[in-house]
Amino acid sequence: MIIVLKREATEAVAQELLGRIEEKGLKPLYMPGLERVVLGALGDERVLAELGLDGHPMVESVKPILSPYKLVSREMHPHDTIVRFGRSGIGGRGFAVIAGPCAVETEERLRKSATAVRDAGAVGLRAGAYKPRTSPYSFQGHGPDGLATLRRIGDELELPVVTEVMDTRDVDAVAAQADMLQIGARNMQNFSLLKAVGGAGRPVLLKRGLAARIEDLLLAAEYLMAEGNEQVILCERGIRTFETATRNTLDLNAVAYMKQKTHLPVLVDPSHGTGARDLVAPMALAAAACGADGLLVEVHENPLDAWSDGAQSLYPHQFENLMAALGPVLAAVGRELA
Amino acid sequence: MIIVLKREATEAVAQELLGRIEEKGLKPLYMPGLERVVLGALGDERVLAELGLDGHPMVESVKPILSPYKLVSREMHPHDTIVRFGRSGIGGRGFAVIAGPCAVETEERLRKSATAVRDAGAVGLRAGAYKPRTSPYSFQGHGPDGLATLRRIGDELELPVVTEVMDTRDVDAVAAQADMLQIGARNMQNFSLLKAVGGAGRPVLLKRGLAARIEDLLLAAEYLMAEGNEQVILCERGIRTFETATRNTLDLNAVAYMKQKTHLPVLVDPSHGTGARDLVAPMALAAAACGADGLLVEVHENPLDAWSDGAQSLYPHQFENLMAALGPVLAAVGRELA
Amino acid sequence: MIIVLKREATEAVAQELLGRIEEKGLKPLYMPGLERVVLGALGDERVLAELGLDGHPMVESVKPILSPYKLVSREMHPHDTIVRFGRSGIGGRGFAVIAGPCAVETEERLRKSATAVRDAGAVGLRAGAYKPRTSPYSFQGHGPDGLATLRRIGDELELPVVTEVMDTRDVDAVAAQADMLQIGARNMQNFSLLKAVGGAGRPVLLKRGLAARIEDLLLAAEYLMAEGNEQVILCERGIRTFETATRNTLDLNAVAYMKQKTHLPVLVDPSHGTGARDLVAPMALAAAACGADGLLVEVHENPLDAWSDGAQSLYPHQFENLMAALGPVLAAVGRELA
Amino acid sequence: MIIVLKREATEAVAQELLGRIEEKGLKPLYMPGLERVVLGALGDERVLAELGLDGHPMVESVKPILSPYKLVSREMHPHDTIVRFGRSGIGGRGFAVIAGPCAVETEERLRKSATAVRDAGAVGLRAGAYKPRTSPYSFQGHGPDGLATLRRIGDELELPVVTEVMDTRDVDAVAAQADMLQIGARNMQNFSLLKAVGGAGRPVLLKRGLAARIEDLLLAAEYLMAEGNEQVILCERGIRTFETATRNTLDLNAVAYMKQKTHLPVLVDPSHGTGARDLVAPMALAAAACGADGLLVEVHENPLDAWSDGAQSLYPHQFENLMAALGPVLAAVGRELA
Repeated sequence: MIIVLKREATEAVAQELLGRIEEKGLKPLYMPGLERVVLGALGDERVLAELGLDGHPMVESVKPILSPYKLVSREMHPHDTIVRFGRSGIGGRGFAVIAGPCAVETEERLRKSATAVRDAGAVGLRAGAYKPRTSPYSFQGHGPDGLATLRRIGDELELPVVTEVMDTRDVDAVAAQADMLQIGARNMQNFSLLKAVGGAGRPVLLKRGLAARIEDLLLAAEYLMAEGNEQVILCERGIRTFETATRNTLDLNAVAYMKQKTHLPVLVDPSHGTGARDLVAPMALAAAACGADGLLVEVHENPLDAWSDGAQSLYPHQFENLMAALGPVLAAVGRELA
Repeated sequence: MIIVLKREATEAVAQELLGRIEEKGLKPLYMPGLERVVLGALGDERVLAELGLDGHPMVESVKPILSPYKLVSREMHPHDTIVRFGRSGIGGRGFAVIAGPCAVETEERLRKSATAVRDAGAVGLRAGAYKPRTSPYSFQGHGPDGLATLRRIGDELELPVVTEVMDTRDVDAVAAQADMLQIGARNMQNFSLLKAVGGAGRPVLLKRGLAARIEDLLLAAEYLMAEGNEQVILCERGIRTFETATRNTLDLNAVAYMKQKTHLPVLVDPSHGTGARDLVAPMALAAAACGADGLLVEVHENPLDAWSDGAQSLYPHQFENLMAALGPVLAAVGRELA
Repeated sequence: MIIVLKREATEAVAQELLGRIEEKGLKPLYMPGLERVVLGALGDERVLAELGLDGHPMVESVKPILSPYKLVSREMHPHDTIVRFGRSGIGGRGFAVIAGPCAVETEERLRKSATAVRDAGAVGLRAGAYKPRTSPYSFQGHGPDGLATLRRIGDELELPVVTEVMDTRDVDAVAAQADMLQIGARNMQNFSLLKAVGGAGRPVLLKRGLAARIEDLLLAAEYLMAEGNEQVILCERGIRTFETATRNTLDLNAVAYMKQKTHLPVLVDPSHGTGARDLVAPMALAAAACGADGLLVEVHENPLDAWSDGAQSLYPHQFENLMAALGPVLAAVGRELA
Repeated sequence: MIIVLKREATEAVAQELLGRIEEKGLKPLYMPGLERVVLGALGDERVLAELGLDGHPMVESVKPILSPYKLVSREMHPHDTIVRFGRSGIGGRGFAVIAGPCAVETEERLRKSATAVRDAGAVGLRAGAYKPRTSPYSFQGHGPDGLATLRRIGDELELPVVTEVMDTRDVDAVAAQADMLQIGARNMQNFSLLKAVGGAGRPVLLKRGLAARIEDLLLAAEYLMAEGNEQVILCERGIRTFETATRNTLDLNAVAYMKQKTHLPVLVDPSHGTGARDLVAPMALAAAACGADGLLVEVHENPLDAWSDGAQSLYPHQFENLMAALGPVLAAVGRELA
């Protein structure tokens, strides 16, 4: 950690701070310059953060040197983590496409959507029983009944299922029915939920928050891993920017960047990432080309009648076309559909 | 709601959509133009949203006309809501300053900080027992013990207390000890928490999320009110933008805008809104000048030793100076300290 | 255009506004609802904008229906525009890679960099003689001498050249030497420059501004086309967001979106779009997969000694590898290197 | 400057870099840690930037210690700069309100608007003869004729005038007629224009760009000062964020922050900062309370008929009310209307 002192800081201030750094068992460094005195502190920066040096009136700025995440870092764990999802492993050479409708609506509709995505080659089914909706007047999901329906259809079609959990009180119930638990974008920094889900004994799909920096996402994953869960998947799903032509701005830079920094698999959700059906396929191909480990795609047997997210849901034939188009792009980058 | 059809949409498509609008009990409108056909649908837009017209392949865009929030809207409820907090009412002519440390650390420290803010004129005490922290390695708060300490100090000093609740499982426990429940920025769209807190029978302080549009914040408040809770306070605390010189960008436009659109009181948190002790006072004065109903300010008896947020916590004497400076600014806009 | 009146607007106000709409030769529409009166105005919305209805005290909001750009719109011009650049055409089936150093430094260095990119298959050379730099103390480019050097190397290696023009006074001089004029991100809304460059008789490469919505970029292109220039290329180069791990956030959504909305070719600059050498190749492949018509890439014969943008410049061997990797990805989407 | 090496960097790499730092005449520092080697370089960081160390493959990150601006910095020049504008000085105890219509429309209209703002107490007149407009189909200003009209009205009413210059070719013409030159938000990083205006011998009003960090704005001012012009005023006018309820997000944090970092005066433009007439007054008062040195406000004798920006222009009586409201707020913070 580098501590830049204010111009008016005296030698005595510098010595006091160096003493405090040393007390914490860290190695202090003194670097007097022409315009500023700069201090260094080498060692575990988590310890150093406790000193609260950024609150000192004579400190101008504090710059960390090391990344604040450890367990998720590729430095500590160079090999790719493979996360189990049904019979598939996510994070290896295979590119995993998980698809399905936004929400569990009726059993019959879910069966149709799920059959369509299975037949086109999806390795898993997604659908929400608990739905986070901006307005209290929007459809909020069927809850436990939806979960049961989802499990039933998953078993019937032999598709593993992933579904969102929004409430710490529901974690056990969702973990009992789902093969993977999803933490949604709006709950990415719901730290109580992260802790509860981290300890639930299921793989976790963690979506990036709308205003989350990559470092925030990696620290949220660190919460999950700190509970002993090594089966964590990250998901880029678009961030909120000034652009209004698309629902979100899909940040594929983040995919390439995270593949360097962490050993965890990275999926891309081009449905929420764009908000527009016609943009899903090009962004899905882009995700495949830049190193993502798979996709999370909204597909509905009849998007016109979808109770939510219809505008960004693919028709089944569009999803089939997408799967056909993915093959050659994946081959071009040395991968294949899982 | 205005529905703009694609250029290639046929008359038959328009008629089909008009039929669907009518079926929902809404008044349909047909507006053929030179380049586009535009449809209108007049009536309750919440009903209309169920039609999912934005997902129709022949629909280019859907533009709502009415605001999606109702209970929080000033149109439905022209008079200012006054929220009870101890002996104070927040939202009237008085300007309510709530202050205290970021977290409950030790009882002795809290007593010192609380005494300082009370003596300077704060109407209430803030301090966290459950702390949402970006990193799992940071201090997470003392939980139930912290709550008890906070209650004890509040009683001792006769200050009502507000504290954050982060987990639906803790709502009852926090409601038992606190005079007001706070929902933090990172949980603003934790809809399970909104519902649970909405039904807890306590006033609520709802902070704006880092990526929340004003409309999102008002809809989050609508969740609380839809549970029957009319005692809701909104709090602007800065949004996340590209600017890095300050921790957040305090959006005072939002204060003036919300005072027009909603009857609920609006507080400003200049501590999180700036992230820098030296910027707190000017932004607090700006908030008073533009119509806010009060402040939420971090004050610590010794910010140098604060376990969190030291860099943005005021020293007690700075808080005293701020309270002294607020008086004349409030008088200038026809208000006074509560 | 849809005009939503305020709740308190009287019938008389509505009639007055309808009269003003009719005076302008547009078709007025009256849509009384339960909570609001809504007016419509059908016809050329550019005419309507002159009415300034959004400034009327009884108007709540004005929503345009038609896009404000015309000449750049695919609706008016369904076929892809092909822009000439040396012997290449940009915008057709071929994928055009333009590469080179950030700036013209010395003739010898430029020759080395240019030879490297030509040998690897680039269709054109990029390098700046006028450099827009955030700080006045940074290298500002060699100006006219740099231009001459660039022309000489282009001729020597038979590579067409594109270079930035920053000043209306330099447009003729740059047009005399360059095969294509570039308008940089920071000048995207320098409307004087757009007009001057639009009339210079050269193809134009227009880069998206850091805070430009897609619509703003298309309107900037409309300025160029309104001067009679049909040879315009758009370039996505990243926008400014809250993310700090990368220099900018490359918005590939914008590429897929613009390919639908406009007939103009769209290039991607993964160098500025990421700011990091290691992220350039994955984003270049993503751009190829999602429908871009080519790339603008920074390559330097020795990035370690580059006078600017070294951190995002590829080494020649990295560029060779990228070109080799592009082939199969382009084939997968039915295209090939130009 | 702090240079963090990658984990895999060898001792030899560190020594090579230290040698390069020393060659530049800077003081090198070697700080080996457990997980990383960190290097320091003390001295003029502008020199250091030439080394391009951030492009080195073994360098993970480079962190500057000193601010990159010098002439605008309060460290070098502790006393407030006072900028002359007619008989007023901007930047001292007086709070300067400059007002007028968006554009010069007709002489008669300008006279009415200007008379209204003068009578209400404005110290200067603003109005554009050259208008930067997003669309080429919008009114572009009257150019030289507009300039002459503006000068005439300014003389007639004894109001100094400020107006925007958009093109280097127009700098002399505008400098001949205007008392102060304005550089608009979209040209804040038009570096050619900054240099030309810096050398024009007139005070300059520099508006913050829509995506400009505060540091970018200060560096743009540094361009002006580096040309020998010490008469520079900064203007916060809102930045572009994800919020759509207001035209821009007015960043008052930036005002308080800049008053600490620079000796230059800071104005606030609440008209563009909000985009809505009803929000102008509260934000103007907030600006006064947080330390701004004045305002730039759009006022039109009849906003309903304004050719541009009608929605954010005050009616004359609203401006009068605003001026009356400013007095007590300014008094509360120890200032007064200029």
